[in-house]
Amino acid sequence: MHFVINRDYFVHSVQHVSKAISSRTTIPILTGIKIVADHEGVTLTGSDSDISIECFIPIEEEEKQLVEIIQEGSIVLQAKVFTEIVKKLPNDKIELVVQDQFSTTLRSGSSVFNLNGLDPEEYPRLPQIEEENTFQIQNDLLKNLIRQTVFAVSTAETRPILTGVNWQVEDDQLICTATDSHRLAMRKTIIEPASNELNFQNVVIPGKSLNELSKIIEDNNDLLTIIVTENQILFKFKNLLFFSRLLDGNYPATKNMIPQQSKTEIILETKGFQQAIERALLLSRDGKNNVVNFKTLEDEQIEITSVTPEIGRVTEKVNTKQLSGEELRISFNGKNIIDALKIVDSSEIKISFTGAMSPFLVKPVDNENSLHLFSPVRTY
Amino acid sequence: MHFVINRDYFVHSVQHVSKAISSRTTIPILTGIKIVADHEGVTLTGSDSDISIECFIPIEEEEKQLVEIIQEGSIVLQAKVFTEIVKKLPNDKIELVVQDQFSTTLRSGSSVFNLNGLDPEEYPRLPQIEEENTFQIQNDLLKNLIRQTVFAVSTAETRPILTGVNWQVEDDQLICTATDSHRLAMRKTIIEPASNELNFQNVVIPGKSLNELSKIIEDNNDLLTIIVTENQILFKFKNLLFFSRLLDGNYPATKNMIPQQSKTEIILETKGFQQAIERALLLSRDGKNNVVNFKTLEDEQIEITSVTPEIGRVTEKVNTKQLSGEELRISFNGKNIIDALKIVDSSEIKISFTGAMSPFLVKPVDNENSLHLFSPVRTY
Repeated sequence: MHFVINRDYFVHSVQHVSKAISSRTTIPILTGIKIVADHEGVTLTGSDSDISIECFIPIEEEEKQLVEIIQEGSIVLQAKVFTEIVKKLPNDKIELVVQDQFSTTLRSGSSVFNLNGLDPEEYPRLPQIEEENTFQIQNDLLKNLIRQTVFAVSTAETRPILTGVNWQVEDDQLICTATDSHRLAMRKTIIEPASNELNFQNVVIPGKSLNELSKIIEDNNDLLTIIVTENQILFKFKNLLFFSRLLDGNYPATKNMIPQQSKTEIILETKGFQQAIERALLLSRDGKNNVVNFKTLEDEQIEITSVTPEIGRVTEKVNTKQLSGEELRISFNGKNIIDALKIVDSSEIKISFTGAMSPFLVKPVDNENSLHLFSPVRTY
Repeated sequence: MHFVINRDYFVHSVQHVSKAISSRTTIPILTGIKIVADHEGVTLTGSDSDISIECFIPIEEEEKQLVEIIQEGSIVLQAKVFTEIVKKLPNDKIELVVQDQFSTTLRSGSSVFNLNGLDPEEYPRLPQIEEENTFQIQNDLLKNLIRQTVFAVSTAETRPILTGVNWQVEDDQLICTATDSHRLAMRKTIIEPASNELNFQNVVIPGKSLNELSKIIEDNNDLLTIIVTENQILFKFKNLLFFSRLLDGNYPATKNMIPQQSKTEIILETKGFQQAIERALLLSRDGKNNVVNFKTLEDEQIEITSVTPEIGRVTEKVNTKQLSGEELRISFNGKNIIDALKIVDSSEIKISFTGAMSPFLVKPVDNENSLHLFSPVRTY
C-alpha cells in the first residue's frame, strides 16, 4: 500500500473512527485502525465490537484532490499513538507506505515515523446489514432526539435494558424513550419511511453508542439514512457509516405509566425555576440524595426548600404564570429535574401533578413532542 | 453584623480568598471564610496557614457605592458552600445579616439562605509583617517571573527546599531560580527597591503559593509592593493582600552549576524545534522516561529520534540558523525541554553544549534575562 493524502481530511477521519476504539478491549487487533486504499479512495475503520465506524476519503471531492493512490492495499495501525501522530505532523500532506512485515512508514515534511503494523486480514468484518427497515432523518433533528432522551438512561447494570434508549415507529411516528425507573424522557417526531411497512417496537440502542454518535453528527439539515435490523442499527452519513449493536431483551411498556389526568397544574418560566432548584440543590447534596421540597403557596407562587442541618437551609419563592387545582407538598430529586430542564427548548413549562405520591409530568408549553416524567421521593 | 453588598464585587472577592482555603485542613475554622464589616467596608480572609489572602471591598469606589453597612461585625462561613451560593444568587445585591449564635441569613431577590456560621474570635490572626525588605514591581512582570520559573520546581518531597522558587536580590537585580536537580530555570530583572539596603539571598517561596498567586495577578502594569521578612512574604495589591510562608532550609548554590564555555553551539527556531520534540515524545513516553536522542548532522541540520520497539521509531530533521563547534550526540528528557520552550518568549533560541555528559544551556537569542539548564540522560 502506498498513498499520499490531505492531512486535514485524514486527521478528521482518523479522529472519527477512533471514537469507536476502546483501549480496554480484549481483542488486540481492535486497538488498531484499519486502513484500506483502493481505486476509489481510502477507507478507515475503528470498532470496539459494540460500535463500529467506517470513514471514507474519496480520491477527489468538489474538484479538489484529497488522495493520490500509488499502490492499493491495507494495514492496521495502533489507534492511540497513530491518532496523536497524524494530528502533530508538520506538512499538509501525509505519505503512507507499507513495506514487508506490515512495517509502515509515515512521512510528512522532515518528519518520518516507522510504525509496526498489524495484519489487516485479522481484522473482523463489519456486520452485513440488509436494507429492510429504512428511513431518513435530518442530521440536526437526530442530534436533538438523542440529546433530549439519552441523559435519562440508567447507568446501573442491574437492568441492562434500561441503559439504552428505546426507539419505536408507529404510523410514521418515531418515539424515543429513556428511563432509569425514577425519571423518564420521551421525544417523538414524524418521519418519512422509505417503504410503507416500517414498523418496529423493541429497538433499544445503547446510551453509550448514542453519545458517541452525537459527537460525530454535524449540525446541519442534510438527510441521513437509518437502517434497523434485528440486532444492529446503521446510521449512514455522507462518507461515514456508524454501526451499533442493539440491546437484547424487552424494553418495559412505558405508555401506561404516563398519567392522563392531573390534580394540580402549574405553568412557569423554565429558567427561573431551573435556577431556584440549582440553588436549593446546594444544600441537598452530600448524603441528601439531591432531595428538594416543593409546595404551592397563595398568590400563584410556589416555594422550594432544602436543608442540610450542619450547614443551613434555603428557601426559594418562584412566581408562576398560572397555578390551578389542589394545594400540594411534594419532594423530588432536584438533579433529575435540572437534567430535564436543561434540554427543554421552551421558555415556559407546564407541570402536572396527581398528588404527592404519584409521578408528575413536565412538558414544554409550546409543543407536544416531548415529555418528562418523575417519581416523587418519600421524605418520611 | 448587617450589610448589603454589590454581588459581582462580592463574588469576585470570595473567589479570590477561597483560593487559599484547603478542604484538607486539620483546623476546622480554616475551612471557613472570615467576613468583617466595619465603617470602611467589608474584608474577607481565607487561609490554609501556608497561604493567607485578604480581600477588601470599600464602601465606595469611583463614586459607585459597593457596600451599605447597616451594622458592623464579623462572622466565619463555610467556604465551599458559601462560594457556590454567592455565585448562584439571583439579584445584583446581596444582604447579609448575622443573628444570635452566628446564625447568618443571606438574602438576594426571592432567595433566602440561612447558614450556620462559626465564631470569628476563633479565627487565627494573620502574620504581622514589618516593612523591612520592600520593593515594587509591575503586575505583568511578576506574573512573567512566576510563569518562567515555577514550572521547574521539584514535585518530590525528598528535598523540600526544591519545591520552592529561590528569590535573591543583589545590586538592584532580582534573580528567580527553580530547579528539580535535572533542569533549572532562571529569570532575572532590575527592580527599584524602596531603600538602599535591600539585599537577600535565601528567600524560597513554595511553588504552590506562586501558582495560586499567579491566578490572582491581573494582567496590567500597575505596581504592587512586595515585603520580605524572615519567614513570610507579602504581596500587596490594591484591595488584596497575599501572604505566603517561606520554606525553611538553605537553597543550593546554583550559580556555579552554569557552564561558562561551550563546545557546540546551535541557533534555531523555537517553534519548529518544539514541534519536532513533541512528535519525538510520542514514541518515548510509557516506560521510556521521555528520553529523546539528538545529534548534529552536516549542512547545519540536527536530527531528533526516539524509539519504542513495540510501536516504532521516529526521525525528525530540523534546519538550524547556525551550527558551530564539535559534532555531538546526546540524549535528554524531551518533556523538560518542551516545558521550557513553551515559556520562552523568543522566536529563536541558542543551545550551548559542553559534550554529551555535561549539562547544556538553552537561552533566548534576543535577551540575557533568562536561561534554562538541563542534565543529559545516559542511555547506555
